[in-house]
Amino acid sequence: MEKIGKASFLYKDVYLKSSSCVTGPKEKEGNLKDYIDKSYDTLDCLEKSWEKAEIRLQDDAFNCALNKTKLCHEDIELVVSGDLNNQIVVSSYMMRKYQIPYIGVYGACSTATLSMIVAANYISTKVCRNIACITSSHYATSERQFRYPTEYGGQKPISTTSTVTGSGCSILSTDKSNIKVIRSTIGKVVDHDYQDAQDLGTAMAPACANTLKQHFEDFQIDASEYDLILTGDLSTYGSKVFLDILKEYQIELPKYNDCGLMVYDLKKQEVYSGGSGCGCASIVLNGYVIKMLEEGLLNKVLLIATGALFSQTIICQKESIPGIAHAIALERVRE
Amino acid sequence: MEKIGKASFLYKDVYLKSSSCVTGPKEKEGNLKDYIDKSYDTLDCLEKSWEKAEIRLQDDAFNCALNKTKLCHEDIELVVSGDLNNQIVVSSYMMRKYQIPYIGVYGACSTATLSMIVAANYISTKVCRNIACITSSHYATSERQFRYPTEYGGQKPISTTSTVTGSGCSILSTDKSNIKVIRSTIGKVVDHDYQDAQDLGTAMAPACANTLKQHFEDFQIDASEYDLILTGDLSTYGSKVFLDILKEYQIELPKYNDCGLMVYDLKKQEVYSGGSGCGCASIVLNGYVIKMLEEGLLNKVLLIATGALFSQTIICQKESIPGIAHAIALERVRE
Repeated sequence: MEKIGKASFLYKDVYLKSSSCVTGPKEKEGNLKDYIDKSYDTLDCLEKSWEKAEIRLQDDAFNCALNKTKLCHEDIELVVSGDLNNQIVVSSYMMRKYQIPYIGVYGACSTATLSMIVAANYISTKVCRNIACITSSHYATSERQFRYPTEYGGQKPISTTSTVTGSGCSILSTDKSNIKVIRSTIGKVVDHDYQDAQDLGTAMAPACANTLKQHFEDFQIDASEYDLILTGDLSTYGSKVFLDILKEYQIELPKYNDCGLMVYDLKKQEVYSGGSGCGCASIVLNGYVIKMLEEGLLNKVLLIATGALFSQTIICQKESIPGIAHAIALERVRE
Repeated sequence: MEKIGKASFLYKDVYLKSSSCVTGPKEKEGNLKDYIDKSYDTLDCLEKSWEKAEIRLQDDAFNCALNKTKLCHEDIELVVSGDLNNQIVVSSYMMRKYQIPYIGVYGACSTATLSMIVAANYISTKVCRNIACITSSHYATSERQFRYPTEYGGQKPISTTSTVTGSGCSILSTDKSNIKVIRSTIGKVVDHDYQDAQDLGTAMAPACANTLKQHFEDFQIDASEYDLILTGDLSTYGSKVFLDILKEYQIELPKYNDCGLMVYDLKKQEVYSGGSGCGCASIVLNGYVIKMLEEGLLNKVLLIATGALFSQTIICQKESIPGIAHAIALERVRE
């Protein structure tokens, strides 16, 4: 492992051994339907509370990723995971079942890449052989916690996003495979004094642009380096702001998409300006991106997962909403 | 860096360059008064909300630790921090001021050691030179979030603890100093089906015993290895349960104390069964322990910070309270 520039890291031999993508009902009907390993027909995922449903999604994702390998639970030396719930309670409660050392991380919706960045250290230095990175979100746990009880039936502006019900798991390993995690850039907290909690995409866009610019500067590369540059979850509103900021930086992104725009069929599904939540970037990564890399349809992908770092308490104090974005680059190993 | 046994790591050349300890009024009147760098006379720390008060404590701790060195903010390559607030909002908002890559971690009150474990990776492998680890808690943010509004004036059972108002910062570095971080053990989530959120010490004690046992097994050492073994924050109730479990494991701890019992003067101050919160282990470590190591009054210390991994939502669902404990060992460098 080597530090590159101000905020980036170059990894040696960090392989992706396995990945999985488990979702709720709405995601199964969206654009990613062909990349989902398992899904539930109801939001409760056969559990008695929304939190327990989300715990089940994480547990399913973990076991689903393991089942694609010859590993058993004992072979996983560390789990790095996180979610959006207060005190990341879903990740912690999921880990009650397993006798595995556990590191909890929080980066709001950027947790998908943050967990992989923390894990990659242990793999790149070969001190651990197999580490599972797990992230999740759930529409109903998020609605109740961040917005209003769904029973209230409040109207929403079009700039809001729909929290993805889903969980993704990546198993990073020193064992060779055909996909590698090659680079990362750790984000800074960026606050542009934006206060609308109903438009988090716009709140996160400056942090996302900041991390992309830093990534290019640190590695002295440009957009042509990647087959696909993915942000997430900026959605319709945030993506536009993000691209506008990049214009100021004189950065062009010909092969660009946003995880929030990829999860659902925005024309047919009622999801306002797109998908969001920790699970959003996580299922796009562990479902779509990994499959495309495996099949050779993509060769090198940069994922910049974005997070809005607010809480309900601080919003009530009329504070602005800062954002953060952590990037990882994945590459198909050419034989 | 080397992995030892099932859950432990041995570090090479991870030095503690500087540390600081900033508190509220009650802590200044407690047992640690001689080890505090800065304190406030009122709980609001001259700010307009409890959250902003806690942000100020973190910011003070960061700057106070920096001021003891020749480093400036730009020399800190990464900040790893966390707190107890929903979405660790205090840590994130503190970082708005600084252009420094930031990793947010959550391990409830075990965050003090968890942040150092995540940071030590980057130092031990020499990819970063200086990293700040910051942790905080605040009596009033915690009371409102986890218990009742203080205005309600509800009575408490004696088994409850008082959340410490304070923040500690450790700057880990590759530059030689007279204190080293030498070992760590990452904890597992341990759930003994205990449900009383008014007695978190008892809820966390099994996880603490589990991590200590693992640490001894992994390094093939016993209690005689250390001058002092510190747990925290188990308090009066939890410490007793912890020592009872150790008896079953046939482990004796002649030189033992608990951070929750050290912060306040339990005979004079009204703090129920002791101190708690992320700030508790953090100020004991960054105040008392570091000073004792610097002065040669202690040579080798093991700190097992403990966390109760619940949220208010999951408690309302009648779930039990799992615990986790992460350990780090510090050693005075002998010339």
